This record gives sequence, C-alpha cells and structure tokens, in this order.
Amino acid sequence: MKKIVVIGATGTLGQAVVRELKARHEVIEVGARRGAHRVDSTDPASVEQLFSQIGQVDGVVTATGKVYFGPLPEMTIEQFRKGLDDKLMGQVNVVMAALRYVNDGGSFTLTSGILADEPIREGVSATTVNLALEGFVRGAAIELPRGIRINLVSPTVLSEAMDSYAPYFRGFEPVSAQRAALAYLRSVEGAQTGRVYRVGY
Amino acid sequence: MKKIVVIGATGTLGQAVVRELKARHEVIEVGARRGAHRVDSTDPASVEQLFSQIGQVDGVVTATGKVYFGPLPEMTIEQFRKGLDDKLMGQVNVVMAALRYVNDGGSFTLTSGILADEPIREGVSATTVNLALEGFVRGAAIELPRGIRINLVSPTVLSEAMDSYAPYFRGFEPVSAQRAALAYLRSVEGAQTGRVYRVGY
Repeated sequence: MKKIVVIGATGTLGQAVVRELKARHEVIEVGARRGAHRVDSTDPASVEQLFSQIGQVDGVVTATGKVYFGPLPEMTIEQFRKGLDDKLMGQVNVVMAALRYVNDGGSFTLTSGILADEPIREGVSATTVNLALEGFVRGAAIELPRGIRINLVSPTVLSEAMDSYAPYFRGFEPVSAQRAALAYLRSVEGAQTGRVYRVGY
Repeated sequence: MKKIVVIGATGTLGQAVVRELKARHEVIEVGARRGAHRVDSTDPASVEQLFSQIGQVDGVVTATGKVYFGPLPEMTIEQFRKGLDDKLMGQVNVVMAALRYVNDGGSFTLTSGILADEPIREGVSATTVNLALEGFVRGAAIELPRGIRINLVSPTVLSEAMDSYAPYFRGFEPVSAQRAALAYLRSVEGAQTGRVYRVGY
C-alpha cells in the first residue's frame, strides 16, 4: 500500500483516479476549493504549505489545469498565457515543491491531453501547454533523484465532458474518466519513467 | 524577391540566416541591442512598435531566446520560468503582434532546438520550452489566416557554440550555423506549414 496524493481530486478525472487508487492505496484527496485538503497549485507557497502538512508520500498525481480556448488571430497574450500559468506551471510547481516530500522510488503522474498531438481550431494554447508538459516530463525523468519516476497521462476528450466540449471535438471518440484513470494506475504502480500514456487515441 | 524580417539577426544563427536569405531577398535585420532595428521580443509593445515602423512583410524569422540551465532539484520556479518568458513568449509575441503585418501567403519561421527530442542533464527548462514551441507551431499552423504558414527549425548544437556548450553535449555531432540556416530557407521559400525541420539529428 502506497500513500498517494491526488491534486485535482474533485474533478471528473480526479474522482475516477481516486476511486481506482483507493482499492489498494491510501489516497489523500486535494481540491482547489473543496475538501479537507486544498491547494492553489499556481502558487508555489500554497503547494509547499500543503506538503508541509501532509508530510512524506509515495506518489503525487496532478489532474488539474485551465487553458484558454479561442481563435488565434484574436487571442491576447494574457489569454494565451493563462494555460502556461495554470495547467503547465500549476503542475510544475507541484513537482518542484513536492520533490523533497516524495519517498525514494516514488512517482509523479501529470496530466496533458490529446490536443498535444491533435490540434483543433481555437486550441493553440492547449496544444502548446500539453506539449510543454511532455517536454517537462521528458527532461525531468532523466534528472529526478532517488529513483523517483515521472510520467504523463494524455487522455482524449472524456465522455463526461462531451456535453460542453462536443463542438470542439467532432469525430473524436471520447473515453470514460474511469478508463482514463487506468493510465494513472500504470504510472503509479508500474516501473516506467518519462512515459506519455496516451488514452483513447 | 520577398521582404523578410530576421529577429535575432546579430546572433550566430541569425547572421547565417541573414547571409543565406540576402542572396535572393530583401532582409530587415533586427537585433536586441545592436543594429538599426531593435526589439525586446519579450515585450509585446516593443514588437508592435517594430512592425509599425517596418510595415508589411512577406516573412518573419525568429532566432532568439534564452533558457536557464541547471540541475532540476535546485532550480527555482523563477529560473524555470526564464525560458517560458524569453524563448517561448518572445517568439509567440512576435507571431501575435506581427500577424496583421504579414502579407497573404507569407510565413513565420521560429527556432527551437535538439533538446526538445534529446533531453540532457540540467536541460529540463530547455526541453519544456522547445516542445512548447513545437506545440505552438502545430496549433497555429491550422489557424493562421490568409494562407500564412508557420514552421519551426530545430537544430542540434552549433559548431560555433561548442566552445561553451561542449560539456553539455558530449557525443552530439554539431552542425555549422550555415548548415542550420538552410532549414530557414526551406521554410521561407517552401510551401509547407506546421513542419518541424530538424537539423543535424
């Protein structure tokens, strides 16, 4: 049994990851605005405070991150930067601040998404951020100390999100959050590092 | 003959790109601190001012960007963000601000680097930023209006840089700036869009 922190535990994907992990592990659920543990992952000090309360863990999962969608020719720099500050740096902040709290041989599992590989209209910021996360994991995997691993889960659009996202994802085959959650298990319980687990594409 | 702006024209790579382009095109050379035209590409207002002076062009090449190198476990968030603010956003700012000054069928050519694909120790920020640029080009290519193209040149380490960078790039085969410059010609004079031209690897 491992002690695993899930950041973004109240989201659709996070809830499914928590459900799967709880079958065999102690899971600490962290939300942005709900739950016993909360964190603003865009603020390094907030992440540091969270882990100073939780203490040592065996794994950290992040399933968080907002990105702005809109047509490129009309996008402002501030809108473009939203995803860098939130989805990218929110997850990078967690790795940087949590590293000393992760036990030898522990793991990080971050979240990107299909738009890394399949660009769509109005999605330039998402594609940028998702590939940046792939770069971060690729670079970090060869540098993390004490046998700590890091992987990335990149799901296609979730069935649960199709009510609002369907117009962006015409012709994309959605997967359930439960199926996407399996990839997090492969990362947490497996032995690989520097991997991108693509789900549903 | 096209009218091409080269931003970063005073650097090793930029100089070589200018030399190659000048054989057939009108080239406007822009530096950060030297030359008749200068720009701080990290400042959107400075980019806007540059293009309001230059006016309409057929192509924009950027060969700029600083990134922090250092061991991941000791890297601060500020150090990590350096490359996002400078190499990534410096080039994104140029695309966003210059877009309305680029003629129909014109092109953007941005610069990443081999660390996108081949991570090295102390290079996590570079790998993140270079793949973010790949994401930006992939996303922008399907959205740019008026037949405007966008490509990315990703060279391996330059022979001219090996004096300072050799310890980071043991076993990497360097290429001359002149050879790397050829990829910019393929982007500017070719017809492809959304391409990553890898040079020397």
